[in-house]
Amino acid sequence: MTHFHYDGRSDAPSTLEEELKEEDYFDYHYDEPGSEPGTLSIEPDANPSRIILIDYDAKHAIRRVDLMPKALIPYLGTNTVSWMDVQGLGSERVLKQVGEILKLHPLLLEDVVNVPQRPKVEDYNQQLLIIAHMVRPRPDEDGFEAEQVSFVLGKNYLLTIQEEELEDCFDPVRDRIRTHQGRVRESGADYLTYLLLDVLIDGYFPVLEDYGERIEELEDKILRSPTQNTLEEIYSVRRELLALRRLIWPLRDVMNILIRSSNKLVSADVQIYLRDCYDHVIQLLDITETYRELASSLMEIYLSSMSNKMNEVMKFLTVISTIFIPLTFIAGVYGMNFKYMPELEWRWGYWLCLFLMVAIACGLIYFFWRRGWFRNFYSTKN
Amino acid sequence: MTHFHYDGRSDAPSTLEEELKEEDYFDYHYDEPGSEPGTLSIEPDANPSRIILIDYDAKHAIRRVDLMPKALIPYLGTNTVSWMDVQGLGSERVLKQVGEILKLHPLLLEDVVNVPQRPKVEDYNQQLLIIAHMVRPRPDEDGFEAEQVSFVLGKNYLLTIQEEELEDCFDPVRDRIRTHQGRVRESGADYLTYLLLDVLIDGYFPVLEDYGERIEELEDKILRSPTQNTLEEIYSVRRELLALRRLIWPLRDVMNILIRSSNKLVSADVQIYLRDCYDHVIQLLDITETYRELASSLMEIYLSSMSNKMNEVMKFLTVISTIFIPLTFIAGVYGMNFKYMPELEWRWGYWLCLFLMVAIACGLIYFFWRRGWFRNFYSTKN
Amino acid sequence: MTHFHYDGRSDAPSTLEEELKEEDYFDYHYDEPGSEPGTLSIEPDANPSRIILIDYDAKHAIRRVDLMPKALIPYLGTNTVSWMDVQGLGSERVLKQVGEILKLHPLLLEDVVNVPQRPKVEDYNQQLLIIAHMVRPRPDEDGFEAEQVSFVLGKNYLLTIQEEELEDCFDPVRDRIRTHQGRVRESGADYLTYLLLDVLIDGYFPVLEDYGERIEELEDKILRSPTQNTLEEIYSVRRELLALRRLIWPLRDVMNILIRSSNKLVSADVQIYLRDCYDHVIQLLDITETYRELASSLMEIYLSSMSNKMNEVMKFLTVISTIFIPLTFIAGVYGMNFKYMPELEWRWGYWLCLFLMVAIACGLIYFFWRRGWFRNFYSTKN
Amino acid sequence: MTHFHYDGRSDAPSTLEEELKEEDYFDYHYDEPGSEPGTLSIEPDANPSRIILIDYDAKHAIRRVDLMPKALIPYLGTNTVSWMDVQGLGSERVLKQVGEILKLHPLLLEDVVNVPQRPKVEDYNQQLLIIAHMVRPRPDEDGFEAEQVSFVLGKNYLLTIQEEELEDCFDPVRDRIRTHQGRVRESGADYLTYLLLDVLIDGYFPVLEDYGERIEELEDKILRSPTQNTLEEIYSVRRELLALRRLIWPLRDVMNILIRSSNKLVSADVQIYLRDCYDHVIQLLDITETYRELASSLMEIYLSSMSNKMNEVMKFLTVISTIFIPLTFIAGVYGMNFKYMPELEWRWGYWLCLFLMVAIACGLIYFFWRRGWFRNFYSTKN
Amino acid sequence: MTHFHYDGRSDAPSTLEEELKEEDYFDYHYDEPGSEPGTLSIEPDANPSRIILIDYDAKHAIRRVDLMPKALIPYLGTNTVSWMDVQGLGSERVLKQVGEILKLHPLLLEDVVNVPQRPKVEDYNQQLLIIAHMVRPRPDEDGFEAEQVSFVLGKNYLLTIQEEELEDCFDPVRDRIRTHQGRVRESGADYLTYLLLDVLIDGYFPVLEDYGERIEELEDKILRSPTQNTLEEIYSVRRELLALRRLIWPLRDVMNILIRSSNKLVSADVQIYLRDCYDHVIQLLDITETYRELASSLMEIYLSSMSNKMNEVMKFLTVISTIFIPLTFIAGVYGMNFKYMPELEWRWGYWLCLFLMVAIACGLIYFFWRRGWFRNFYSTKN
Repeated sequence: MTHFHYDGRSDAPSTLEEELKEEDYFDYHYDEPGSEPGTLSIEPDANPSRIILIDYDAKHAIRRVDLMPKALIPYLGTNTVSWMDVQGLGSERVLKQVGEILKLHPLLLEDVVNVPQRPKVEDYNQQLLIIAHMVRPRPDEDGFEAEQVSFVLGKNYLLTIQEEELEDCFDPVRDRIRTHQGRVRESGADYLTYLLLDVLIDGYFPVLEDYGERIEELEDKILRSPTQNTLEEIYSVRRELLALRRLIWPLRDVMNILIRSSNKLVSADVQIYLRDCYDHVIQLLDITETYRELASSLMEIYLSSMSNKMNEVMKFLTVISTIFIPLTFIAGVYGMNFKYMPELEWRWGYWLCLFLMVAIACGLIYFFWRRGWFRNFYSTKN
Repeated sequence: MTHFHYDGRSDAPSTLEEELKEEDYFDYHYDEPGSEPGTLSIEPDANPSRIILIDYDAKHAIRRVDLMPKALIPYLGTNTVSWMDVQGLGSERVLKQVGEILKLHPLLLEDVVNVPQRPKVEDYNQQLLIIAHMVRPRPDEDGFEAEQVSFVLGKNYLLTIQEEELEDCFDPVRDRIRTHQGRVRESGADYLTYLLLDVLIDGYFPVLEDYGERIEELEDKILRSPTQNTLEEIYSVRRELLALRRLIWPLRDVMNILIRSSNKLVSADVQIYLRDCYDHVIQLLDITETYRELASSLMEIYLSSMSNKMNEVMKFLTVISTIFIPLTFIAGVYGMNFKYMPELEWRWGYWLCLFLMVAIACGLIYFFWRRGWFRNFYSTKN
Repeated sequence: MTHFHYDGRSDAPSTLEEELKEEDYFDYHYDEPGSEPGTLSIEPDANPSRIILIDYDAKHAIRRVDLMPKALIPYLGTNTVSWMDVQGLGSERVLKQVGEILKLHPLLLEDVVNVPQRPKVEDYNQQLLIIAHMVRPRPDEDGFEAEQVSFVLGKNYLLTIQEEELEDCFDPVRDRIRTHQGRVRESGADYLTYLLLDVLIDGYFPVLEDYGERIEELEDKILRSPTQNTLEEIYSVRRELLALRRLIWPLRDVMNILIRSSNKLVSADVQIYLRDCYDHVIQLLDITETYRELASSLMEIYLSSMSNKMNEVMKFLTVISTIFIPLTFIAGVYGMNFKYMPELEWRWGYWLCLFLMVAIACGLIYFFWRRGWFRNFYSTKN
Repeated sequence: MTHFHYDGRSDAPSTLEEELKEEDYFDYHYDEPGSEPGTLSIEPDANPSRIILIDYDAKHAIRRVDLMPKALIPYLGTNTVSWMDVQGLGSERVLKQVGEILKLHPLLLEDVVNVPQRPKVEDYNQQLLIIAHMVRPRPDEDGFEAEQVSFVLGKNYLLTIQEEELEDCFDPVRDRIRTHQGRVRESGADYLTYLLLDVLIDGYFPVLEDYGERIEELEDKILRSPTQNTLEEIYSVRRELLALRRLIWPLRDVMNILIRSSNKLVSADVQIYLRDCYDHVIQLLDITETYRELASSLMEIYLSSMSNKMNEVMKFLTVISTIFIPLTFIAGVYGMNFKYMPELEWRWGYWLCLFLMVAIACGLIYFFWRRGWFRNFYSTKN
Repeated sequence: MTHFHYDGRSDAPSTLEEELKEEDYFDYHYDEPGSEPGTLSIEPDANPSRIILIDYDAKHAIRRVDLMPKALIPYLGTNTVSWMDVQGLGSERVLKQVGEILKLHPLLLEDVVNVPQRPKVEDYNQQLLIIAHMVRPRPDEDGFEAEQVSFVLGKNYLLTIQEEELEDCFDPVRDRIRTHQGRVRESGADYLTYLLLDVLIDGYFPVLEDYGERIEELEDKILRSPTQNTLEEIYSVRRELLALRRLIWPLRDVMNILIRSSNKLVSADVQIYLRDCYDHVIQLLDITETYRELASSLMEIYLSSMSNKMNEVMKFLTVISTIFIPLTFIAGVYGMNFKYMPELEWRWGYWLCLFLMVAIACGLIYFFWRRGWFRNFYSTKN
């Protein structure tokens, strides 16, 4: 499994297994140096590839699952829209056959299979390759998971290749095709591509919203009870936002290129809809940048809060020492063994001495209290 | 109510209710993933929509309130300027009818209804959509409120859609139409749009001025009596300025596009006026950036002030300890029980010893005073 | 008086009056929300407007002061260059009459009167509006004052509008016209504009030089004897440089537009001269940015110096405590009242004990001295 | 040897020899001031130059080693692709002869020989010069080594010049030519150039991956047991990433220029392949920037961790002192020698006094424990 | 003498004289406000101007020194290349005569004489003005000196104006002309300009290399024995790099404009050579930026090292106090004068008590040692 994988570092120490996974954090796929361009590198633990076909026009819509690549041939070259959905990257033979049937450029196939790649659009004249990533919050934990989805848009067909067979976010679109809802059945493969991209992009919002909430919580924690763990959490939020931004930022270029593309595969009508996607990507970037700025402000405030808290404690302790030091000195004086120390003989000497000590202590406390050295201490506590 | 909502974090702990509101802070509206493009999502607590029509030309001006959408039809297609003002986003049926009557693109209607959106201009040939936000200082508190206003400019009409029914900042324009003041009654719907945008943009200045004053106050506080609350306030100012910038920054692009637009709906004459709006937006950005820079300088100065104050206190306390420690040592020496300690037998031993202690204390105090270790302490206090 | 106004925060606490003035710091003029575009807002304390006319060509040059606006009419439309200098913005009627006579666009007049505006060039075909600010060091104090000067360049005339009647920096140009020095009398109104802009821009250099000197002084102070006041001064320098940059930065665009302008009011010949002004503005920006970078380095060094100084003090005090603590412990041991303590009975016990104490103290001092804990202390002091 | 050379500063102090090498860190080659343009400066310790020729087309492929420059002539001007690989820059005569045979511009030869140069493309019409750097992880140590490789692409030939004779990363390409694998034998010299650039760029990924791992390790160290060495290591990582970025950043421009080049030496077909290289370079930059951001976050966290750790220690020690100071005071009181101190006569006075001391100690411990001053201490340790 | 002048602040306090010089640090020349454009301001201490002529073509080359300006006339308008080198800016009359003979624009002459100016190219059709600065390391001290050199390139002649008569870096070029080495004698004035610019730019490398070495040294100092002086040195390096960047940055634009210039004075052939200069300037910028980044990393590391060192000292001292405080308390207990204290009567009470003290001390030392509070201390020392 080569998808991105971020977990909010929890308080409990993470197990070794998790740490090994984390090494995938910021890496892209890279070819074994010296491998022939166009070589597919199948990961040993990748799911076998399943092919699901949805073929529709205004009048009919069929769905066939677990097809062999050759079974796709009759559906190509017709006027109906064919959505071929390949799930899982485990079967090299299947992927190569699909590539041959659709006449995919070897570099195109390489980008699709050797995940993860940076989001991008590539124009191969007869085909348009769009690479994007689907994100979802991690179940049971903080953080998010990302999975690469590649779109190959051709004349009257759309090929989507997903890293994994797990549930994706495309079900609402499938439902809409089935129930003939909205204008999807009347439109071409480009409109279908738009719908899928729209759903995929909308999936980033709940993930970002989670970060918004985590930042809110961190603000509270920092101002109330900052600990070392808070620091680790801020770092982890910054790091994950960095990773998110790396997925979203190139998506902006992707949308921009699609809107301005002169390739006939994307009609002017759909480009108006894509402007909407572009807006959403801009909003995502906006939010990400804002959160990153807030997270680094939080770092500064954390540092200041920590040092404030610590200083108050030290001040409190030092004030206590300072009150007792003169008293101890007085006790020391009357503990001296000089022969002629008149006070020692006085009837009320001891009581006078005690009274002097209490007076000095009160005087110092009053002095410190006037300067406000106790006040701050309590105000930050409560 | 989905408008932006920022409150200057006050000293008292904010109630849970307020915190829930705050979750709206930096979010844009996003579609339920998988919803059909063009779906309107009406918030349950949105105000029902009211329609107010002002129809005028150089000779007459009428105003009709609480119209049904169908009542608008006779006013369209005439040579008079029709300003249709929809207040509140609660009535889906009303909004859809308005959309049908004016032949609005479903995506346009979506942007108008699903608030908040990022400020932008979209050119739909027959219509121009402008999205902006009206801000006002929050009553009784620090911070500001923002409300989305959408302008749909068509041939001889302007449709404005406001999030809420509350008082807006457009009354001066309404008065000017009623009293036939200035050139508004002689001009078209584009001039009206300019007037409304101008009023809306001018509304940002008092909000920013408030932040200027809060920064001035914070400067004073920081240099006089910095506390942990000051820190929270700086953070809150930075955060709100960040939010303001997010409203103003895209407005610059909006004005820029309008000035350069080749769409006939905006005449060259009005574009000269819009240059003025553009200047104002640039000034707003200028001020915002300056305030943000000042606010982050303040953070540094706060940190330095705090640590200075604390250091001075610690120095004072440590100096006191340091003075008493040798004295206590001397008292300890003469508290020893050795049999042969000649000083103990001296007649004036005790007094000599006390004198020695006083001399040492004075010597140390003089030494510390010469090095200036007391001076700083007092100078920062007063 | 609405001009910018910056004072270097001096040691003495600033009076309330000064603080009220300071509220103008970073504000631009903004219209009363809802006011008709083109409304002139005259400040109550503005000086009444005076008009001074200088009319010249190669053969003659006349100067007339305190003219009524109507008296300007004969000088327009001739082949001589007419420089109309309006000083003070207090007389709305005068300003409006001037506007009518020269056929100024209402928005132009608004920008000229409602000060301060951001520096800019606006091309009204028949007229070119240039807004800039004149700066001078504040008399008797640190800081600088700025005053808006607007240039309206028309065919054979130049209208300058200054905020105040006070002395300006244009006298050398007036002298050159009077004494027929240089090529000014042979040239047109565009050359006059260049001369005035050149003088105005050269006026920024001495102001910036002051900041260079203040930064030099701050460097010395910081490395020798940093105090809290030094910090406030750094902040004040940064803030004023920020304000200066806001005046200079848009000036770059102004010069750039003038050099590239295709408007016939500025001849190609004068554009070569304006390139020189452009260079000067670039140099101003260069210096400002350098000073800002130096000022923020100074902040870091200040913080480090302060904490170094404080740490040395604390170290010194702690070293003293640490020396006495074992001695006090020994004294405590021989102050115990055990019955059988052989040392107490020794003839030289007391002296041995004192000797032990001295030895321990010397040992510790030697140890600390060897580690260099005293050295640093003295080296930073001197 | 003039290649870049970075070693991860290890714990052991680096030897003088290593430090002398390090002086090469960030330097480019520069001409002896005043030397004639085109002068070749051969380093005294450079390897003598070896020439290896691989000449191939679809039908044959030969390889000849240790050729004299003149032996190359027959292979030029044919229709077969000739790859001339010069290894080592030590033989001025050989290099000059090669230059004469291929008619290289003197400045081209200078860039190729006087290493290191910044990566770049230069178009000499008949030839295209591409300068890039090969990197590999240093054996046995952290850090990486870089070696300049220059590509001179001409009609049907490719000249590569490597700094050193050591193993390079081109073997997979050589194998593919030999075994007639992939389309290299059917393609021209431009495709060969692409293959070599691709291999070279892929070689950066494992180097960057090392840094990813070092950052992961640093994260762990910082949160568990930060030391001064950790700091040095962060600095060293930042510095080496800076050096890497300097190699990768200009490579982006190189690829960009090649993709857009209108020079016929690079065919449109190969430009599609070069787009893939461009993507890889973008990904490298992406990763480098992310690592740099992470490394500077780590610095902040390190500083905070260090000061947290230290503060906790100081707090612990101060708490201990604060507990004992009141007890010592009480002991001091009953050590006074007043004649009339009733408590001293009590039968259980001593025990009461001890009980009082224990009670005070427990009270203080409880008080400190309640405020959480012990808790933090233990939580950060474990 | 108005040239730039930077000295690395040495340990010894700089004399007043040096400080006065330093005021020139970041200033450009600016005109006396109000002076006529084209006014030459001769500094009182400027060297008198000397003129040296080198006139050459492929067949001959002559050199004449200390010419009067009029003596230059015969050499102009011929087909030989005339290089007129003016050294020193002290003689206004000479400079003006040169200006008249070569028909220099008054603004050109102003830029040449009123030093220092920002590096730039100005195209006066018949002439091309290039302003650059020659730098050299300061003799005997850290830091560098800069001197403005202006190049006026005309048809078949090159006029260079140097601020000072001192040795320049142009001797290698003079030698090459004299000895007919390279292609200079066959080429025009543009090739000569290229040669001189190349030599001038190459002169920056050794200066930057010095900074590289100073940064290396600072790294060592910081990690071994940071002092306040180290801080001042970092600041001084940053400041001088800032100044260097100000000289190099505009040089990039200069080279860029020259390469793209369509002015016939620079032939296409020489533009290929100038690309090489451009590369060198880019490399200079690269190095400068890298050093600036390293220098600010060093600042952070310095701060952290300092506070680490200090903290270790404080920890050591506090640990010592903490060990003695409980012992002193025990001594205090047995110093109390209660009548009934059974331990005091015990035969081995005193020894038991001493044993208890030693045990407690050892226990604490062991406890602190286990927590690693001594370890760090020693590891950072060595």
